[in-house]
Amino acid sequence: MPEQKINVNQNILAMEYAVRGPIPQRAAKLKDKGKEVIFCNIGNPQALGQAPITYYRQVVSLLEEPAKIARERQLKNLFEENPYSDLHESDFIPEDVLALSEKVLAKTGKGLGAYTESKGYRFVREAVADFINRRDGFDSASGLKADPEAIFLTDGASDGAKRVLNLLIAKETDGVMIPIPQYPLYSATIRAFGGTQVNYYPDEENDWALTREALESAYNAAIEQDTDVKVIVVINPGNPTGAILDGNSINEVIAFAKEHSLAIIADEVYQENIYGGEFISFAKALGDEKNVPLFSLHSISKGFYGECGHRGGYLEVRNPPMIAGSELNFIDLLLKQASVSLCANTVGQIITYLMVSPPEESNTARQKFIKEKEKVLGNLYEKATMVRAAFEKMDGVEVFGKTGAMYLFPRLNKLPAGTTDFDYCMALLEETGLCTVNGSGFGQASGTHHLRIAFLPSKEQLEEVLPKWIEFHNRYVNRDG
Amino acid sequence: MPEQKINVNQNILAMEYAVRGPIPQRAAKLKDKGKEVIFCNIGNPQALGQAPITYYRQVVSLLEEPAKIARERQLKNLFEENPYSDLHESDFIPEDVLALSEKVLAKTGKGLGAYTESKGYRFVREAVADFINRRDGFDSASGLKADPEAIFLTDGASDGAKRVLNLLIAKETDGVMIPIPQYPLYSATIRAFGGTQVNYYPDEENDWALTREALESAYNAAIEQDTDVKVIVVINPGNPTGAILDGNSINEVIAFAKEHSLAIIADEVYQENIYGGEFISFAKALGDEKNVPLFSLHSISKGFYGECGHRGGYLEVRNPPMIAGSELNFIDLLLKQASVSLCANTVGQIITYLMVSPPEESNTARQKFIKEKEKVLGNLYEKATMVRAAFEKMDGVEVFGKTGAMYLFPRLNKLPAGTTDFDYCMALLEETGLCTVNGSGFGQASGTHHLRIAFLPSKEQLEEVLPKWIEFHNRYVNRDG
Repeated sequence: MPEQKINVNQNILAMEYAVRGPIPQRAAKLKDKGKEVIFCNIGNPQALGQAPITYYRQVVSLLEEPAKIARERQLKNLFEENPYSDLHESDFIPEDVLALSEKVLAKTGKGLGAYTESKGYRFVREAVADFINRRDGFDSASGLKADPEAIFLTDGASDGAKRVLNLLIAKETDGVMIPIPQYPLYSATIRAFGGTQVNYYPDEENDWALTREALESAYNAAIEQDTDVKVIVVINPGNPTGAILDGNSINEVIAFAKEHSLAIIADEVYQENIYGGEFISFAKALGDEKNVPLFSLHSISKGFYGECGHRGGYLEVRNPPMIAGSELNFIDLLLKQASVSLCANTVGQIITYLMVSPPEESNTARQKFIKEKEKVLGNLYEKATMVRAAFEKMDGVEVFGKTGAMYLFPRLNKLPAGTTDFDYCMALLEETGLCTVNGSGFGQASGTHHLRIAFLPSKEQLEEVLPKWIEFHNRYVNRDG
Repeated sequence: MPEQKINVNQNILAMEYAVRGPIPQRAAKLKDKGKEVIFCNIGNPQALGQAPITYYRQVVSLLEEPAKIARERQLKNLFEENPYSDLHESDFIPEDVLALSEKVLAKTGKGLGAYTESKGYRFVREAVADFINRRDGFDSASGLKADPEAIFLTDGASDGAKRVLNLLIAKETDGVMIPIPQYPLYSATIRAFGGTQVNYYPDEENDWALTREALESAYNAAIEQDTDVKVIVVINPGNPTGAILDGNSINEVIAFAKEHSLAIIADEVYQENIYGGEFISFAKALGDEKNVPLFSLHSISKGFYGECGHRGGYLEVRNPPMIAGSELNFIDLLLKQASVSLCANTVGQIITYLMVSPPEESNTARQKFIKEKEKVLGNLYEKATMVRAAFEKMDGVEVFGKTGAMYLFPRLNKLPAGTTDFDYCMALLEETGLCTVNGSGFGQASGTHHLRIAFLPSKEQLEEVLPKWIEFHNRYVNRDG
């Protein structure tokens, strides 16, 4: 190692990212030593046993080896001639899925091994646009239809958020409003690009709703510090809170952004993870408002599919602003930026296509798909309910908001004097093997303590660990008593 | 679109990237209009018909749908009982490949749908380390063995280069030395991160060799401008030049970097694309020199595999420097940076594993693998030879350097007065459908003109287009005569 120390980008040196911070790092060490650890620090469903959606994987598998499409048909014929074999019809890929794979393969041009357009496959962007139009009820008459040329396919939603922030942050005093608590991708990215983080505070006890007052107060405080606020980030359903935003909150954000000429980044990656409430997209709420630039993010990592490792997602832009000092608009600039990275990975693009194009009514794969989808979402809801029930047995634990996303973010009202939620989470890990993330890793209102738990382990695991947690908790918070 | 113009990151606004610049954009438009275009602007082999390596895809296909491993074995049994079917043994995946897929699947833990460690799967990083050790003859006795913890799996080599430059560029006067001509990823990334580009000039007529004199002269000119030079980028084999660096050049770079306390970024993505010369890695040339930090890049996009769309590669760090103002070293910081992006895509990681782990002698897939590899590389060499032969029939065209990579970078000595290589390439595209990139897109010594052609189209396509190019060229350069 060279003796001389070097100077590096101070923004990255200063950056923090709790989701993979000290507690998860300690958990990994404990696991290496043979301790049983339940990783609830991150929304990584398949790591905790969630099965992938069968037909997504069938299609991707065939696209990776297209010769298998024709072979599958031959094999089916062979099987039909040999009914006494150990194989069953369900061991073969349905013809609908074979036909879909053929169709998708043709649309890729030369298959998954070639770079795509910088924005991603055009046919996938068209499918994303159709998805948005269906979801939000946009038709030609409304003039609100999504434009495939305003959609960028990304390596996960984090990639999309970073692209936009990298362009928006032009100088140190450029401000980005983020909710507190927030997903630390945002604080880390603002730090990495050298901008200014401007905190705003959802109302925890009012289901984490957003009020105009809270937004204005954060904005005014920033302006007084000479911060040039440019954009507001909203995460809905919330991460880490898991809370679902109501229509009022969304409308307040839009009116607020319009008044102060801000753009909105709407992180909507948990839009399928709604257990009881209703998801309203920012695109829909925006309607025909033309003066508020909107960047919406979606991902294949969450929902009922949980394809985290494949890194896919999209960024949709509405009302792209023109760029000062140029003839370009924001989409032109995003394209220039994307072109240097060549393209998002093709498998992530294809799974994005499948995510936004569920099998049609007539498709034989549909029934199985619906069953798998309902099973995953039902399971998540049951698990959230189990964890919520455990909180009720813990002294001084409260949790707010309708359940969404994959997280619960309980408030710990009764920590012993001098201890922090970091201490608590570390002790919880050491004693029970449950790896959570301390509330301070996301930011929280001063004087409050929380933790975030991803409710992803199996019900059996939860049944085993929750009583241990309750016992640990009540002992920990009452140890001074 | 909002009326107000917004200020954005000026570095990205100013950035240029010719590989997807005006000429390729014009080519895409011509293609949309029905013109036959041959895309030689980018190293994207599968887009031009190169077939993927069969066993890479077999493994990935099975990992995407693991149930198919057991089914394949059942099918084989069924086939053996039914010799009269239309299927042949070659229609089934060899047992060795099934066993390998099972082994790899087990190593991933929960399959391709989960996030991996931030650095990438540990087993892939171990395989990368073994590959480097085999390639460079490092054993335990030498003390030079690669460390899996100093290896980061990336979404292609561009991603790796950007990670390092993002950390190294701490302020506007931080300088990055790059060869001219260079792959514009580097100029664009230096610009995007707000650093200073410092040009150095390989000796074109001496096979693009690097001399100490050229390096010192570039360095001194930068120092005089108060640039704080921190790192030198070397691309070997060259892009766009296609030239293979000799041992002397590599040793000069290392001695130069040592004297001035610079780090080296060695872009070695074309290390398998050697047609006649010899590839010497910077890691090997560095040997036990401990005072020069080295960042080596490799990719699944090039070589004989050309898996561009899958976005995979690695970054290996040797002699990581300590970071001023902290207790961290450079690897710690790369890890922190990587953790915010969660992980590189898993399929890219798996193909990286396959790239560095060719099938062993005993593996039945080996023979086919070797045949496919030799076919691709033989083909590339023949195509480079065809293009070189065409240059000899063009007035005032010279090309230098041993052939490597996927490119030729001929010098156009006889352009008509007042025309540029951009004009030439645009006219070539319009008249023949051949899409190349003008030399000025890569940078070139003042007063010279070049173009870069990726020699990837089929031989049949080349046979058709090369005579047209020769005819076009001789007419174009002699039009004033």
